[in-house]
Amino acid sequence: MRVALLCPDMSNDSTERIVAHLRAWIAAAPAGARLPSSRALTRELGVSPVTVQKAMHQLNALGLIETRPGVGTFVRAGRPPSPVDFGWQTGALGTPRVRIPSLSSTQQVVSPDAIALHSGYPTRELLPTKLVQTAIARAARSASAAARSPAGGLPELQTWFANELAGATLAGAPPVTGRDVIILPGSQSGLSSIFRAVVGPGQPLAIESPTYWGAIVAAAQAGVVLVPIPTGSDGPNPETVDDVLRRSGARAFYAQPTFANPTGAQWSPERSRAILDIVRNRRAFLIEDDWAHDLGIDADPAPIATHDTEGHVIYLRSLTKSVSPALRVAAVIARGPVRDRIFTDLAAETMYVSGLLQTAALEVVSQPSWRAHLKRLRMELRTRRDFLAESVAEHVPQAHIENVPAGGLNLWLRLPQATDLARLSRDTAAHNVFIAAGDEWFPAEAASPHIRLNFSGPEPERYPEAARAIGVALTAQGC
Amino acid sequence: MRVALLCPDMSNDSTERIVAHLRAWIAAAPAGARLPSSRALTRELGVSPVTVQKAMHQLNALGLIETRPGVGTFVRAGRPPSPVDFGWQTGALGTPRVRIPSLSSTQQVVSPDAIALHSGYPTRELLPTKLVQTAIARAARSASAAARSPAGGLPELQTWFANELAGATLAGAPPVTGRDVIILPGSQSGLSSIFRAVVGPGQPLAIESPTYWGAIVAAAQAGVVLVPIPTGSDGPNPETVDDVLRRSGARAFYAQPTFANPTGAQWSPERSRAILDIVRNRRAFLIEDDWAHDLGIDADPAPIATHDTEGHVIYLRSLTKSVSPALRVAAVIARGPVRDRIFTDLAAETMYVSGLLQTAALEVVSQPSWRAHLKRLRMELRTRRDFLAESVAEHVPQAHIENVPAGGLNLWLRLPQATDLARLSRDTAAHNVFIAAGDEWFPAEAASPHIRLNFSGPEPERYPEAARAIGVALTAQGC
Repeated sequence: MRVALLCPDMSNDSTERIVAHLRAWIAAAPAGARLPSSRALTRELGVSPVTVQKAMHQLNALGLIETRPGVGTFVRAGRPPSPVDFGWQTGALGTPRVRIPSLSSTQQVVSPDAIALHSGYPTRELLPTKLVQTAIARAARSASAAARSPAGGLPELQTWFANELAGATLAGAPPVTGRDVIILPGSQSGLSSIFRAVVGPGQPLAIESPTYWGAIVAAAQAGVVLVPIPTGSDGPNPETVDDVLRRSGARAFYAQPTFANPTGAQWSPERSRAILDIVRNRRAFLIEDDWAHDLGIDADPAPIATHDTEGHVIYLRSLTKSVSPALRVAAVIARGPVRDRIFTDLAAETMYVSGLLQTAALEVVSQPSWRAHLKRLRMELRTRRDFLAESVAEHVPQAHIENVPAGGLNLWLRLPQATDLARLSRDTAAHNVFIAAGDEWFPAEAASPHIRLNFSGPEPERYPEAARAIGVALTAQGC
Repeated sequence: MRVALLCPDMSNDSTERIVAHLRAWIAAAPAGARLPSSRALTRELGVSPVTVQKAMHQLNALGLIETRPGVGTFVRAGRPPSPVDFGWQTGALGTPRVRIPSLSSTQQVVSPDAIALHSGYPTRELLPTKLVQTAIARAARSASAAARSPAGGLPELQTWFANELAGATLAGAPPVTGRDVIILPGSQSGLSSIFRAVVGPGQPLAIESPTYWGAIVAAAQAGVVLVPIPTGSDGPNPETVDDVLRRSGARAFYAQPTFANPTGAQWSPERSRAILDIVRNRRAFLIEDDWAHDLGIDADPAPIATHDTEGHVIYLRSLTKSVSPALRVAAVIARGPVRDRIFTDLAAETMYVSGLLQTAALEVVSQPSWRAHLKRLRMELRTRRDFLAESVAEHVPQAHIENVPAGGLNLWLRLPQATDLARLSRDTAAHNVFIAAGDEWFPAEAASPHIRLNFSGPEPERYPEAARAIGVALTAQGC
């Protein structure tokens, strides 16, 4: 090991620098390694013998070396690894180009005995676990487990997604085909790629407010400028949509028209038609995130994409929430040049999606028992939703349920204007009840405090207990 | 269905516009639907009866409607879906911000009887298929198959990756821990996120030339400016690295120091040390893509990351090529603030990686038979590499093998300067032999024509046949 390699720029004769460089040498050397002689160091580093001596003294004091008189100087065995200062990285990296919010509180991992109303994912009992396990085992034996799948996805799965949408498409509208479908490793990648490819950094994107926090995070990462459109239990006002698109010049509007997260809103057919017309007249895109397609309770999904005759709708559909979070498979469906833009970005980002996951997901949704599962899920979600809403009505008189949603997994509660949400979350957590503070769903300010309660977690029988804890914590705030 | 919603902007009294809007209405209507009466249309659209009559005439001529006298006008059944013009999208999208190269020719799907030397993925026989199938079946029964996994990855898998690197780390250097590891859905996502988070759009990134085409694609997508550093069978010249970093101001250097794709180069320990010193002195990052960690033939990998004491190396390690393309799992290992930057970008992009894939991958690499498989793979790759090199030497006298690689999956052949690579690929493909033209591995111009031949595809016994086809095609070009 030659010291010189570590010190090519050793012109400044300062003890500190010699010490720093010898520390790096020592850190890389095995315990017991012999240091070059003082004479060699003097020569190789081009410094005075006094400087070398001072440096050795310091290294000895740091416990990094030991000198055996008449033998030499050695790297000390059993020395503790020195803590590393990574400060130089901050200088090298500079200020981040975009500020991406840190992960959502909905992703917080809580103890098993907690009442988890904060998470966005259904508990195991609501998933078709047996069906998924069988499908995975079968997929593992198929050729897909050892092969690279095409960049756009397995053709059979592309066709399945296309048929699902085409089956609902109005007669006369050109039907979607498998070629219009791009398979994704989860819908989050789709959001990122769509925002990059269709909007681009520095450009405006209209977005519902409140809306899914993951979309807000993906937009920040893509560097797009969010333009909020207020939405309520009926969806956004078409005139506002038109006004925002006109004033901002946004070429795309991200929305969840079916059982929106967090509001639960489902747009009426008239409103859907009106907003699609506005988007069309503005020569813009509607990014329709149909996240809750399988999660209807009192209503069925009616994707706006089925009315799209001219390629204005970019449709996003995920299986993660209804099939399994382990089978992360989603699809984006788009037609025309915009499909190619999104595809190119996605291919550069993900190359391809595991054929195992695609084969297993297709196997699940092709089984007759998948339909039976969705029917049971619907009944179970209805019971849970109603029980949670009743528990809230009884124990949280301060909360206003804006909309008992016809589908999805969440209740969205408006709280008194003076509510301190951070304190509320802390206080309920102290009683082992976890809720999601509403702020994360707002791209800008929240006009009023909200919380989101998910009714697909474990132990629904504890909803009254959870509601009581929320009510008590609100009362303690004087609400 | 009200027509008015479709025509909010119907002030211009032109037949063409009425026709266009009625066509949209008809496209969205079921066959047999009754059109509003001419009187109603006149009133609702605010146009003259003559205009409505003219429009109806055109729609009739187009076969879209039929009039039953005295009854009404109806949407014609069985009309063909009209071809859609998506031209408006190009106007809405504008010119792409970045030009991302389309997918590589290495991803071309060829017929099963072809000799496929173009692909980058090992054939099924070289993969531990039984081991993978068993691991997937076992993982499917585990809790991970129904649960969301943490954003950074499953802790056990993070620890496995950390231990692999820490086991080789020099004593004294602070060992990598699981917390430094971020699990990825394939290394391509890692490249994209690293380039975005560490370099950023418009900023320079030093890169070996030639190098992995997927890195070039990811760099284009991230909008970074590539600064090529020529590399050969020993890796790049350290002085050139220093010079390029100094002149370009690049804060990062992407390289494959171990069995580089496509050259097969492995940097000597001296060169590795020298380049790490240069990177450190320039306060830059070395993005070490250890893609062939499991693919050593005559040599073992010696990651430069094991010498890194101050967080200068961002280390990328994938299991896709050695375990299974269906178990897309990779890891990026980085320490300090740069780890957090990459993590934030990745979390916004992928949210989390399927727990099923992570559990199955960990299961595979934890089995004793995994080590046994790697030993067999090494022998098999040696046989194939040597047989392909001999076949080329015998049948392609025009080609120069710059380096018989000590690992990896590829031979990199230099061809006579006058070679027309596109023609060569076409001519060999006509004889069912698929090769990869070298251009895709160059971030800028290729100084001379090369082809890459992969020796991990099916049917190695046909190498002489393939080599003959290449030799004949070169001769036909007068080379």
